Amino acid sequence: MLEKPLVTIVGFGAFGQLLAGLLTPYCRIQVHDPDMGAQLAATNAGHGTVPVAGIGGQYVILAVPVQGLADCLRQIAPHLRPGQTVIDVCSVKEEPARLMADLLPAGVDVIATHPMFGPQSAVAGLAGLQVVLCPVRGDGWRRLAAWLRRAGLRIVVTTPEEHDRQAAMTQGLTHLLARAIHSLGEQPRIRTRSYDLLTEAVAMVLHDAPDVVDAITRRNPHIEGLRVRLMQALAR
Amino acid sequence: MLEKPLVTIVGFGAFGQLLAGLLTPYCRIQVHDPDMGAQLAATNAGHGTVPVAGIGGQYVILAVPVQGLADCLRQIAPHLRPGQTVIDVCSVKEEPARLMADLLPAGVDVIATHPMFGPQSAVAGLAGLQVVLCPVRGDGWRRLAAWLRRAGLRIVVTTPEEHDRQAAMTQGLTHLLARAIHSLGEQPRIRTRSYDLLTEAVAMVLHDAPDVVDAITRRNPHIEGLRVRLMQALAR
Repeated sequence: MLEKPLVTIVGFGAFGQLLAGLLTPYCRIQVHDPDMGAQLAATNAGHGTVPVAGIGGQYVILAVPVQGLADCLRQIAPHLRPGQTVIDVCSVKEEPARLMADLLPAGVDVIATHPMFGPQSAVAGLAGLQVVLCPVRGDGWRRLAAWLRRAGLRIVVTTPEEHDRQAAMTQGLTHLLARAIHSLGEQPRIRTRSYDLLTEAVAMVLHDAPDVVDAITRRNPHIEGLRVRLMQALAR
Repeated sequence: MLEKPLVTIVGFGAFGQLLAGLLTPYCRIQVHDPDMGAQLAATNAGHGTVPVAGIGGQYVILAVPVQGLADCLRQIAPHLRPGQTVIDVCSVKEEPARLMADLLPAGVDVIATHPMFGPQSAVAGLAGLQVVLCPVRGDGWRRLAAWLRRAGLRIVVTTPEEHDRQAAMTQGLTHLLARAIHSLGEQPRIRTRSYDLLTEAVAMVLHDAPDVVDAITRRNPHIEGLRVRLMQALAR
């Protein structure tokens, strides 16, 4: 049996922890969190922290919010080795793809990805989950896509621009509506099945972390146009 | 064993037919449709049509759209008998309650109701479905409420005004959003669970009959205020 590949997760917030749990059956996981340092070794049994000088593994997954990505890239760039593949998981893709292309060394493959799941939708493991892959540099994404497909995930390969355009509809619309509907403050006793579904959709995104909400509703360049089109449609 | 009560359904469109199917285990059903006349006797085995002069039964359910309710009331009023209970099932309640109070003879009990279900949500029978009851005249609604509760329905008793205020949120919001979202014309491949729920909610109401859509989105006096508040929230 082949040894499991080594994956380094940089950033160990909610999504880094979810990834570590999902990948543990398939990979050896190292965790590096610049903010938490050696605390992690004690609090997360089975996941070792690594000094930044020793970022190892075929894949380096940056589980940091887009707001901190540039700093993170500058910090890790000197410690990467040619042949490694760096992957971000931010909720938008144009800005991270540009930052990674600009700030990571030439010998490193780069994939901008968006895992379309979170703790609520990934309770049953990887199978059936959707991941968007945007190849930025090198061919590393082909091997990753093949591996993810074997693990049962549904893969969409597209450009960062097309991702952000579609995500403005998928995630941007849901978040905009969730906040608008919540602010109306109504909780009617009179219900329909379609209203129950709408309420369930709102509840799923209403309590997302502030940096995720900011990324989805403010850092997607297509969101403002969508908001204007939605308001025009409602005004008719 | 007591004989099943006789119920007359006036109007045999989609909702009248659904009601006939749901009530058949509990009641004898007579159908009167002013537009279809004797055709019904031939095409709907088991449901007899009745001449308008013979509107019988304890309950007379008006399964006609709000747009045709006034004409229907004027047509049936001379043929009702004291002690009967007349029930409408329109999607709004202020206008039907006022029309029934004005146009039905004094000896007839009147209940404005809104069954919060349709063919898609009533596939498993009456149990668990929600019905809103707005007593308009007489005490007949108490017996109806008790019967509906025994049949497993969830009953909300309220005023026509409060119904329309809440329904503006429940049904009005869903319909306004469904039409606005549909008009954007986007069908993103990139999906989240919350967007799937939103899409499912939209699909449930998008193809409702035009008279239902008109009733929900134009004849509810609270809908315009809700639309304005929603647009203000989206503009922030």
